[in-house]
Parts: sequence; structure tokens; C-alpha cells
Amino acid sequence: MPDSGSEIEVALLTPERGARRTRRELYEQLRSAVRSGRLAPGLRMPASRALARRLGVSRNTVTTVYDLLISEGCLSARTGSGTFVAPGSTPGARRAPAIDMTDRLRPIWSSLPRPVVPPLAPRHFLMGLPDLASFPWETWRKMLNRTLRVHGPEVGLNLDPQGSPALRQAIASHLSLARGVACRPEDIVVTSGAQQAFDLLAKVLVHRPGVVLAVEDPGYRPAHLPFVAAGAKIEAAPVDDEGIVVEALSDDAEIIYVTPSHQLPLGVPMSPLRREALLAHARATGAIVIEDDYDGEFRFDGRPLEALQTLDVSQQVIYVGTFSKSLYPDLRLGFVAAPEWLRARLVSAKIASDGRTPLLAQDTLAAFIAEGHLARHVRRMRRIYGERRQALLDGVREAPDGWLGPFPSAAGLHLALRLPEDVDARAFLHIAAGLGVGAFPLSQFKVDRGGQNGLALGFGALDKADVRLGALALAEAARRAAAEL
Amino acid sequence: MPDSGSEIEVALLTPERGARRTRRELYEQLRSAVRSGRLAPGLRMPASRALARRLGVSRNTVTTVYDLLISEGCLSARTGSGTFVAPGSTPGARRAPAIDMTDRLRPIWSSLPRPVVPPLAPRHFLMGLPDLASFPWETWRKMLNRTLRVHGPEVGLNLDPQGSPALRQAIASHLSLARGVACRPEDIVVTSGAQQAFDLLAKVLVHRPGVVLAVEDPGYRPAHLPFVAAGAKIEAAPVDDEGIVVEALSDDAEIIYVTPSHQLPLGVPMSPLRREALLAHARATGAIVIEDDYDGEFRFDGRPLEALQTLDVSQQVIYVGTFSKSLYPDLRLGFVAAPEWLRARLVSAKIASDGRTPLLAQDTLAAFIAEGHLARHVRRMRRIYGERRQALLDGVREAPDGWLGPFPSAAGLHLALRLPEDVDARAFLHIAAGLGVGAFPLSQFKVDRGGQNGLALGFGALDKADVRLGALALAEAARRAAAEL
Repeated sequence: MPDSGSEIEVALLTPERGARRTRRELYEQLRSAVRSGRLAPGLRMPASRALARRLGVSRNTVTTVYDLLISEGCLSARTGSGTFVAPGSTPGARRAPAIDMTDRLRPIWSSLPRPVVPPLAPRHFLMGLPDLASFPWETWRKMLNRTLRVHGPEVGLNLDPQGSPALRQAIASHLSLARGVACRPEDIVVTSGAQQAFDLLAKVLVHRPGVVLAVEDPGYRPAHLPFVAAGAKIEAAPVDDEGIVVEALSDDAEIIYVTPSHQLPLGVPMSPLRREALLAHARATGAIVIEDDYDGEFRFDGRPLEALQTLDVSQQVIYVGTFSKSLYPDLRLGFVAAPEWLRARLVSAKIASDGRTPLLAQDTLAAFIAEGHLARHVRRMRRIYGERRQALLDGVREAPDGWLGPFPSAAGLHLALRLPEDVDARAFLHIAAGLGVGAFPLSQFKVDRGGQNGLALGFGALDKADVRLGALALAEAARRAAAEL
Repeated sequence: MPDSGSEIEVALLTPERGARRTRRELYEQLRSAVRSGRLAPGLRMPASRALARRLGVSRNTVTTVYDLLISEGCLSARTGSGTFVAPGSTPGARRAPAIDMTDRLRPIWSSLPRPVVPPLAPRHFLMGLPDLASFPWETWRKMLNRTLRVHGPEVGLNLDPQGSPALRQAIASHLSLARGVACRPEDIVVTSGAQQAFDLLAKVLVHRPGVVLAVEDPGYRPAHLPFVAAGAKIEAAPVDDEGIVVEALSDDAEIIYVTPSHQLPLGVPMSPLRREALLAHARATGAIVIEDDYDGEFRFDGRPLEALQTLDVSQQVIYVGTFSKSLYPDLRLGFVAAPEWLRARLVSAKIASDGRTPLLAQDTLAAFIAEGHLARHVRRMRRIYGERRQALLDGVREAPDGWLGPFPSAAGLHLALRLPEDVDARAFLHIAAGLGVGAFPLSQFKVDRGGQNGLALGFGALDKADVRLGALALAEAARRAAAEL
């Protein structure tokens, strides 16, 4: 940290600013700051030149004091990278908790599993990642620069917590054209990724403890989490080849969370009949339906499926979208197409949660959409992902009968494959890992009973050749596993 | 939206892709999409050339159909800007709510006042805004580009929901040196602005309904909001010239929220004795203290004040910081320096709330700090803000005795000024608005009884000349108001 001399004065708690300091004074102050823990072990000290200039002492004074403290073990020097507060330089544990705080924390957060990234195989079918190498980074970078140049000093004024008007306009047009979702700019609430959409919906819709949220089983558990945290009770409904089993839904479910375009993880699209049944159920019970359309833009068989929201005539469907799959996840931009009765409170929850989403990213995305780059990128990626998907399907066809049969699906960036009932998916994946290929057991998406035995495979982040080789390796793993049975 | 032809196919629900369409087919499909509301009023239609190319028809076919629909009032053409779905083209109200949903929403969000931006006076002392014109945009833009070039295709992998390791390292160094806060990179949890820090803390610390949060009165109500939403009960404690009145705190308060460096809105720093008393109270009652250090970097009198966290020996103080004031608000980057007992659950709450904060902004900031730009900018702005503050103090000294006396303060981007007890601050501001100057009544920050009568004035976004003229106008307004009494 060059030139941070003015800052260290604070750490030293110098009474008079600008007074010349003798070597001893500086030594004692620095030593006490280190030993009291005010300068923490591992901290990089300012360069001697910068500190000297700022304190009004000679550089020689600073280097001498640094050397003295190094010889005492308070500081340590690493050649080429600077001077650091030495590990273990703080005597004893300065900060022991006086009281046990554990009972002061909400227990729910202790039970949340930290995301476990397994050791990745060379060809790992990671879920939830698009092809980052194919993203038009240079176009994006130019548009980001343009937005930044225009915004710069203006940023910070006239901000709408509901989202930038330009982006809401662009999303409404895109949704209407690409997904047949009827909506206007004023229906859109911009969120920091789809995950925040679920958090805001949970804050607004869980109006008393014990509100029942019905979910798909297997399903996407991160979306359930904010509802559980807000006090909701989860009710799991099975999924078959037509989507969520509507007859399994209880009348108590006030909220129903579904992924109708491309079920996560099975990949099946919800059939037209099932959609009608779900909406009829919602009308009969008054349930609110959350439609998570995370990657429905990528359809491969030319038969476009309407969004559930398009069929809804009673304002009971809340549509959640994201640009994490169509563009890239670090963008952290998602949105809710919210019925009118919901909107104002959703915006209030947004204000309380993080104020608003950065305008720079919003307006860059707005221009990217308005100038046709999103539609172009989605069209291009649809072809690329379609080829990968086909390579995956072709490769696993080499597996023995009853192994790796695909669940029906026509969209999205992942596929699910079946395993025989009596095969342990994790044991199978162990064999596959030996052949350099990785995937996820469907059991990882189990909410209650879970059901189907098999694997989920994302093909967004592997190129076609790797998808093909990975699929062939999976087929080989199936042959070996079958021989062992 | 040029070249979005592939998308409109979905809106048209075309059964066969690529089939040639006659004029009549296209007309009927578009008309039905508009009349059913699937293409919403106000939507911009694709350019005729782009749609024609995509559908495999002549451009003439598309323009003829567009013209026909325009003549029927389904579409409308605006010269130079394209063809749009006409307002009122959807017959009847397609979407009437079938059921009353109001009782399905948490009532708290209906009571949240939407942010009211008063009509701004030419010289308005806006609160919470730094000087955006003085920010080194060009340096920032270059570093953003560098980060984007390095990251690009890598972004999306190896992401830590606790925050980028580079940024946590940079924040820990900065805090240790600039604020005397002892912390290590592993203590830092990066948040999307300070507002999200309060939301995450509320999610973790409100472990049962009715947990008491003690707050300063007057105080910064947006920080209280997530706690109230999570079920906490607010207890207001008055603020005097030494900060929060510790004797007024009840033993029931499990959480105490304070702004010790620069009380919001009064601007007073918490005195050393009051700090000791607050920490002693916390140790005696087991309360958790949240220290909001939103603009403590900007000190003007050379007597640096330690952070409360530095004095804490029992891990009871949680330090919240932000870069909204030291850099710019749209950055949306803040952080928590969290005691060890809190950290894992705070990260869990972060994962559930929005997954993570965008890495691009995080790593750009990390480089900006590590290369000394933050320290340099803060040092420069400290001088600039110091001059503005002095200009404000000098100007209001022209007011009659008993009017516009400043509350003691030595830091930050705003000041509070007293008004006589019997003066209505809003009526005074009305007179001031007539003289082209605006400020905020302290009553806007009232939590319970509120106390002090006066004004809060932010001087971050006005240059020195405007601050001076604004202050003189306020003094003139005081003379006029005094004459009227």
C-alpha cells in the first residue's frame, strides 16, 4: 500500500499531527500498536519512503525502526514484497469472547451447508454455468465504458430502487418478444440476481410463520432457503415426466415454486395439460405461483413453450428471470415480472435489503439488450448448446440398456440421465471420476423423498469435444459398473 | 430492438420454424398476439427488415402487414423511432385479480414510506452524497477495464460468497491503518452496500420475535428497517452532545445500533467516556453493538478517534463500513468486520440473500485500494470537504443569536444546525427554499421523541462557492424568520 502514510497516524494514535518524531517515539508507538493487536498479524506495512514522507522524518529513521522491530520478531520482511506484521506478534489471545453468543443467533443459519465444490474431474459437467468463453466480452467492455463515461458524475442521483427505467423497458420488450410474457416496464422489479428475487418474495409473501411453500422434489433448494429463513414450511411434491404432480399439492400451499420451462434438476418441461392443471389448482385454492424461468431461452427443438405467466388470467403467477445463464453469472442481474398487487411492497423490501442494484451494470445491460446483442448472443448460443446437448445424448447412447437414459427435455443448459434403481449414484460417480469425468447425483437435489435415481449434467461450460469425450467416458463407466453388479 | 426476429417467433407461437409464411398468416398471428395482450401496448416491434430476414419472407410482406395493423389501430408508427404496439389495443382488462391478495402480504412493507425527494432547491444540502465530480473516474475506468480483461472468461469460477480474497485483504489493511480497527482478511464479509450489512445482521441476530434493538433518537432509520422486518422491537435512546445516552438504554436491549464516529444526523462524535460506558453496558448486559462507521474517514481537526471496535475486548462490537461516501454510492460495496462467532452464519445469510456481490466491482476496488488510490482520494477529499465545512460554518455565523448554531462535530460529510425550540423547521425551510437553498429537518430522523430542533445539511455534493452562498441564504432566512416571530 504505497503512500498510505496519512493512515498510519491513526493506527499510531499520534496526538499532534505533523510533529517530528524521533526514532524512539516511532519505535515505541509502532511496537505498542503491533503488540496490542491494533496492527494485526499479516498486515502489510506502508513502504518506508511513504511513511517517512508523511511523518516528516527521514527514510533512514523508518528503516532503522522497521529493522529493529524485525529483529524483535514484531515485523517480518519478505524480499520483494514488503514488510509485514509478524504472525504471533500479538501476545496471548487479545479477544476472547466474554459471553457465549451462540444462543443469540438464529439457528437456521448454522444448518445451512456451505457450498461444497467436489474435486473437479478434467471433464466436469458443472451445473448452472453458461459458456463464459463465448460471451462477447469485448462488446460488453465497450458498452460498459460508454455507460460509465455517460454516467460517471451523474451516478448517485435520480435512482429508482425498482430498477433503471431503461433496463425495465428493455426487459419488458425482451420478455414480450422472446418469452411471450405480457408485461410493461412498470411491472418489472430489477433484482441482484434471481436469488435476491426469491429473498424479496419471501420477505413479502411469508406473512405469518408456517406459511406453506410447495416445491418440486427433486428441486432447486437455494430458492427455497429464503422462504424457510422467513418462517415458511416446505411441502415437497414429486416430479414426473410432465413436471410437478399437481394432484400431490395440498390445498394448504399458499405459495408454489416451479421451474416449468426446464425442471431443475430433471430437465423436463411442464406439459400443457399440467400447466392448465396447476393454474386451475391455483385459482381454486388461491395459491400464488412463482415461475422460475432460469434458462428457458435455450430451446432446441423449435417448439416454443409459452411461459406459465402467459396463461395466467388471474394475476397469480409471479415470473422470475435472470441473466446469469443467458449472459454470465457474475453480472448478478435478475428480475421479477410482478403482478400489480405485489409490486409496491416488493420495492419496499428491495429498499430495505440493499437499497438498489448498481446502475452501471443495469444501464449497460439495457443498452446491450436494446441494441440487439442479447438476442444475437442467445441465438448463437442456442446453436452451440444444441450441438453440445446432441453430443452428450449421442455419447451416452453407448451405455448398456437401462443406464444413462435421458429424461425428456427440450431446453436449457443441463440434462438429467437415469441410473438403474439399485445403483448407488455416488459409487457410479467414483468410477466415472477415475475416467476423468464428473457430474452431480440427482439425490443432491432431493427435498424430501426425491425419487428418481440418476445424474444431472450441465453442458454450458464444456466445449463440444469435451462433452463428447465426457459422455463416452460416462458410457464406459456404466459398462464397468454394470459388469460389477 | 433490431435483429430480434428469432424471438418474435415465440410470441407468435409458430408451429413450424422456418416455414414460409404468407402475408395473411403473419397478419393473423401478429393481430392475435397483440389482441390477446401477448404483445403488450407500448412494445417496440422488430424492424421490418430484421423480422423479414428471420421469418424467411420478403420485407415487403412485413411492411404491408405492419401497415395493415397500423390502419386497424393495433400498431402505431412513430416517425424515426419505429413501430409500436398501440396503446389500448388489448380489448378489455385481460388481467383482473381473481382474489384479493392483500391479506397474503406482510403488512410491514405497506407501511414503508417510499423515499420522498422534495423539490430540490438550486443549492440543496443533500444528505449522504459525496462529491461525484471529484471522483477519479478515469483511473477507476482504467482499473475496471484491466480487471475485466483479466477476469472475463474466468468470472463465475472459484467464487467466495464471503467476498473476493483480494478485496478482503485490501479492506483489512485499510481498516487497520486508517481506522485502527484490528482485523484480518478472514474477519471481513463483503456486502452489497452497508444496507445489506444491516439486512444480513438482522437475519442472523433477530433469533426470536421481539428481540430489542436499541437505536439512537434521532437516528438513521433505514438501518433499523431490516431489523423491524425480521421481527425486532425498536427502543429509542436519546442523543446528547456526547453521543447516545447510555443510561437511557434498558437491560433488555440485545442489540445496540450506533454511529459513534459521526452521529447520524446530529454529527456529534461519541465522547471517549461515553464509549467506555457503552462498552461497559454491553459487557454487563451481554448486548451486541453494531458500529456504523459510514463516513468516519473524513476527520477535519486532526484528532483521530479510535473506532469503538478497537476498544472492544470481548468480541461484542460488529463494525460496518461502506465505500458509498469515500468513493461513490452506486458502487454498492460495504462490509462487516465480524467477530469470529458471527461470521459463518453471516456468510450463510449472504448466500441466501443474493448469492454474492459481483466480483468485477470487488476486484476493481481491491486494486484501487492496494495501489493507494483510496488513501490518496480520501486525503484529497478531506481537504476539499474541510473547506466546504468551514464555508458552511462561516456562512451560518451570520444568523441571529440562537439560530443555526452547529452541533459539535469533527468529521463526516454533513453538519446539524440548531433552530430555536419554538420554530417550526419545515416552515423555516419554506422560507429558505424561497432563497434557493434546501436542507432536511432533524424531525425527519425522529425515531420516538426525537428531541433536538434543527436541520441536517450534507455538503458532499455542493462545491465551496455554493456551500458559501447556501449558508448565507440560510442566515438570511433566519433573519427573516426571527423578524416574523
